[in-house]
Amino acid sequence: MPNIRLTLEYDGAAYHGWQRQPSVPTIQGTIEAAVRAVSREKVNVTGAGRTDAGVHALGQVANFKTRSRLAADVWVRALNRYLPDDIAILRAERVPAGFHSRYDALEKTYEYHILNRRVRTAMGRQYLEIVHPPLDLARMRRGARPLIGRHDFTAYRAGGLQPEEKSSICTLREIRIVKRGDEVRILLRADRFLYQMVRTIVGTLVEVGLERRPAADMQRILASKNRGLAGQTAPANGLFLVKVVYRKTDRA
Amino acid sequence: MPNIRLTLEYDGAAYHGWQRQPSVPTIQGTIEAAVRAVSREKVNVTGAGRTDAGVHALGQVANFKTRSRLAADVWVRALNRYLPDDIAILRAERVPAGFHSRYDALEKTYEYHILNRRVRTAMGRQYLEIVHPPLDLARMRRGARPLIGRHDFTAYRAGGLQPEEKSSICTLREIRIVKRGDEVRILLRADRFLYQMVRTIVGTLVEVGLERRPAADMQRILASKNRGLAGQTAPANGLFLVKVVYRKTDRA
Repeated sequence: MPNIRLTLEYDGAAYHGWQRQPSVPTIQGTIEAAVRAVSREKVNVTGAGRTDAGVHALGQVANFKTRSRLAADVWVRALNRYLPDDIAILRAERVPAGFHSRYDALEKTYEYHILNRRVRTAMGRQYLEIVHPPLDLARMRRGARPLIGRHDFTAYRAGGLQPEEKSSICTLREIRIVKRGDEVRILLRADRFLYQMVRTIVGTLVEVGLERRPAADMQRILASKNRGLAGQTAPANGLFLVKVVYRKTDRA
Repeated sequence: MPNIRLTLEYDGAAYHGWQRQPSVPTIQGTIEAAVRAVSREKVNVTGAGRTDAGVHALGQVANFKTRSRLAADVWVRALNRYLPDDIAILRAERVPAGFHSRYDALEKTYEYHILNRRVRTAMGRQYLEIVHPPLDLARMRRGARPLIGRHDFTAYRAGGLQPEEKSSICTLREIRIVKRGDEVRILLRADRFLYQMVRTIVGTLVEVGLERRPAADMQRILASKNRGLAGQTAPANGLFLVKVVYRKTDRA
């Protein structure tokens, strides 16, 4: 059976997250309904990242098996015709039968968007967190640095291990904190992320940036493996799943 | 009576434009209601630009006369408390009694945002126009150049002269077309703009960029003073009123 990989964008504001749930709108459920409308099949669409309610994606990856012989680019147009405006399929490719968008992901990149200014904003509020007092970015960068590398991120996760997870060890390859105008963007790139790991790291980094904690807390919390020591979870609406990387050979 | 000048931001998606109308939400009506809630006065809030339905503002300027002796920065906080989330007062200043936000404006800047890519987008659709085929920016810049300067812009307006307008001569000081990623931004700066002038120029420029018209049409249309020759009016949601400039001495 053809295995189709989708790259997609969505505005998560109106959805209860990625994962299918009865009687509430989810991204997965909405895409599965669109596939059903196109090919009259009931498929299971697997997503690389199971984003939470309100989280957005610029480059989510998903895959599903189909009996249909539609060409990949026909899938793009056909799905977009049935999907609501806040979900957009950017690309479809046929991939080997064994390809699994979550298990085969080698690396993911998330970005967190903060508007850092004294006055409130009228614009794009579903796409950012607003932080009023000025953030000390140098201090945040200093705090973030020791998180880079292979560590047990238990302290920066919510809840216990998920059913499919074997460990809480991740390799965080990059944390980049940049400012453009009054917008601060925090980019995190890792081989994998634990549940709410990005939002927990960002929430704690914001407390560092506001001088409510020393920069050294970031490393101390990591070493403690105690979630109770980390800061508040940053709100979902500032978070974007930007990119998922696979081996080059994962194309059919 | 104190004359208060406001600088404000709004997301125009939910409003029937700036101008007060009975029984539909407008920016002016909503701000006047907030003033009433703060100071129990029925005021007339005058806006520098009477933006259309769906048009946004990052730096609209407005003013109103009040009997209240509230300090300017107290007005900011008080109005923001009563305003909905999609309108934000950024600044308030006391200005001379004779100041009028529309008549005294020396220059306005608008920006038009286009997402130029083949596939549709899920994100920020209320803030941009999407154009699928690739735009030839060099061709658009070539077309735009002759519009710079003092001209009769009758061909690039909608409808006749507005009640308060004496002529359709404007000095267009700048048209800048820039690309960042797949977003194209068109900035226009002039001493004044006629009704729907930005959207008519942008709509025609897009037709030039898509090679549906020669670049020289921009100048030919201008010289013709015939609106019938110009292109389609670009949709409201891509348009932002960015800045209004006054004489430095307009502060009390």
